[in-house]
Amino acid sequence: MKVSVSSIWSSVKEIRENSPVIHNITNYVVMNNSANALLAIGASPVMAHAEEEMEEMVNIAGALVINIGTLSPHWIRAMLLAVDQARKVNIPIILDPVGAGATAYRTITAKELIREAPPAIIRGNASEVMALMEEDAKTKGVESTASSHSAVDIAHKLNKSCGSVVCVSGETDYIIYGDDVTKVKNGHPMMTKVTGMGCIATAICGAFASVNRAYAEAAVQAMAVMGIAGEIAVKNAAGPGMLQVRFLDALYGLSEKDIKHYLKIEG
Amino acid sequence: MKVSVSSIWSSVKEIRENSPVIHNITNYVVMNNSANALLAIGASPVMAHAEEEMEEMVNIAGALVINIGTLSPHWIRAMLLAVDQARKVNIPIILDPVGAGATAYRTITAKELIREAPPAIIRGNASEVMALMEEDAKTKGVESTASSHSAVDIAHKLNKSCGSVVCVSGETDYIIYGDDVTKVKNGHPMMTKVTGMGCIATAICGAFASVNRAYAEAAVQAMAVMGIAGEIAVKNAAGPGMLQVRFLDALYGLSEKDIKHYLKIEG
Amino acid sequence: MKVSVSSIWSSVKEIRENSPVIHNITNYVVMNNSANALLAIGASPVMAHAEEEMEEMVNIAGALVINIGTLSPHWIRAMLLAVDQARKVNIPIILDPVGAGATAYRTITAKELIREAPPAIIRGNASEVMALMEEDAKTKGVESTASSHSAVDIAHKLNKSCGSVVCVSGETDYIIYGDDVTKVKNGHPMMTKVTGMGCIATAICGAFASVNRAYAEAAVQAMAVMGIAGEIAVKNAAGPGMLQVRFLDALYGLSEKDIKHYLKIEG
Repeated sequence: MKVSVSSIWSSVKEIRENSPVIHNITNYVVMNNSANALLAIGASPVMAHAEEEMEEMVNIAGALVINIGTLSPHWIRAMLLAVDQARKVNIPIILDPVGAGATAYRTITAKELIREAPPAIIRGNASEVMALMEEDAKTKGVESTASSHSAVDIAHKLNKSCGSVVCVSGETDYIIYGDDVTKVKNGHPMMTKVTGMGCIATAICGAFASVNRAYAEAAVQAMAVMGIAGEIAVKNAAGPGMLQVRFLDALYGLSEKDIKHYLKIEG
Repeated sequence: MKVSVSSIWSSVKEIRENSPVIHNITNYVVMNNSANALLAIGASPVMAHAEEEMEEMVNIAGALVINIGTLSPHWIRAMLLAVDQARKVNIPIILDPVGAGATAYRTITAKELIREAPPAIIRGNASEVMALMEEDAKTKGVESTASSHSAVDIAHKLNKSCGSVVCVSGETDYIIYGDDVTKVKNGHPMMTKVTGMGCIATAICGAFASVNRAYAEAAVQAMAVMGIAGEIAVKNAAGPGMLQVRFLDALYGLSEKDIKHYLKIEG
Repeated sequence: MKVSVSSIWSSVKEIRENSPVIHNITNYVVMNNSANALLAIGASPVMAHAEEEMEEMVNIAGALVINIGTLSPHWIRAMLLAVDQARKVNIPIILDPVGAGATAYRTITAKELIREAPPAIIRGNASEVMALMEEDAKTKGVESTASSHSAVDIAHKLNKSCGSVVCVSGETDYIIYGDDVTKVKNGHPMMTKVTGMGCIATAICGAFASVNRAYAEAAVQAMAVMGIAGEIAVKNAAGPGMLQVRFLDALYGLSEKDIKHYLKIEG
């Protein structure tokens, strides 16, 4: 897919102008970072997990981000309610199957969520994406044991089975939809030393999907912006502590010129 | 109300010397930031939500901060137990009705908490404060859709109905108690791009209320210190990432000279 | 105990090369920081608390870190399942009895966890360690009201009763095992103004215990690395905000030369 600088910039501007409400049911570890990243790019994050308020919260949202990083039965029920409501009111669902493959509980829950209401975008690492289609995928905790490239074929199968845009992130991010494969080569290895950068990427996909209903393009835009902000941040960071601080500043200050300078997409 | 530099400085010194225990039942998103802000100003934060230990935890606290940002039934029960015990042992309750107006669940819970044991201070944005008194208030997720000024009349009604000091925060913070309205004009717009700055303000109100039983004055002191620390922080911050880092440093290093230099209160 | 620079460096290298999975059932306040500190030192953190996936998650871990900072009944059940499984598959358990002594619920839970499966290492402040052996210990919230030195005798008793290495942290950290007492004098007072530094120390003990089955030595190594990273971090930090950022960078960049330069152990 051809995704231009101006299309990315146009989405960034729309997020900043409209500050869409992004509803997140995400894990405890990354809630704060996800909310801050969404604020930094210009969106308006909400976090809520009570079944009692799920319908109302989804109704005011422009996208729903579901992340299974710290599951429990109550939360799964809330997630199922949320995706049902999101389908009814026709807002995009973005799913992050954190740790799928590491435990059956996660793999089964991720598959159930996909069956209940197919996401607009599924974003995970190679192991997680493979676990959604195969029995024998292995995840090392919440990290991938495989390169993103190795999951491309399975990502195509996953896309065919549920219709979702599949984003396999890694050193190169692969965004798969139909016959199309787009590679985003932005980012920096030090980003893997900050917890929740993948979860943040999923939340940012939510922000872009809320303003761009061409979800494959939205996913490419989001992954490019993530990677570019990471590259800008790492320039003034001695380690992962400062990287995450500068990353938020980079999202906040991102300009069209930055996108033009850094963008590395292969369509 | 006239709130002087020396009265603010006196409270800051008392917090630093006595490090009062502030018990927080707050939302998952901001727990870490609230704890760090309380430590930075000199208080001793505690977070606990189990009904089994609520009474004991409240008994060792100098103030109780209740924040409804990520509710669920278990947590509401713990909050009700906590406010009951706080009333019994006569420590101030500070309530943050996060997202009141966004969902009925939040509005109803906030009202129930106020009925159960009237807070010393209620701190929220304009939409949240309006939701506590009116049926038709609108909250955009957890952000306000109205200016703080527009909620002043309703804040007076809320104060009359429950007796709590009402703090409506926004570009200008309004602290309402009886016929008195005090405006705090410190702060910086970039603070709205850091998640949980409002929640932190509520926690900081707890610290000041624990050392100053004149709760309207304590609220003014807390909001002034928040705003001043934000203004100091933003001077060396390119964006919201660095802002929150420098904000903690500013709270930690706050001097009487800083307060004198920055304070903008209209009594 | 004599713990040399080269033994510490050897463990750091092994963590970086093998990136052991460290499974954490920890409190909401510090999850993000603990995960980031484990990533920065080179380990691979996992957080999960559902009983449904506990056995599988423990099975892929190299150490289990249990922290009782924000308890509730569900979580206690998960902790008990986790320590049982850790004992079965023979991986070290590291226990942080946060707030033991502040409430009976915490004291009882910590004791129950120790009885169920004796930890390899128990790390707490003086008040917490005293609470595990005595009825009348006092904890001020989650902070200690006693110096670490004052808990050394009780730490010996605790070690005798359950066999665990006992690490009493404070201005000087005491690592007690059998007749041996090792003092780590690294660290900086400003670290007490960052929430969760104790919890992070416990998580880092998990990383070292996963690569070094001599648990007393592993605890000494971990506490030395914590303190050294803190000393490096504080040099460029005006307050606790920047301290925690630089702390992660210091863990990430830690060299053998740093260890040699800063190490202050008394055997």
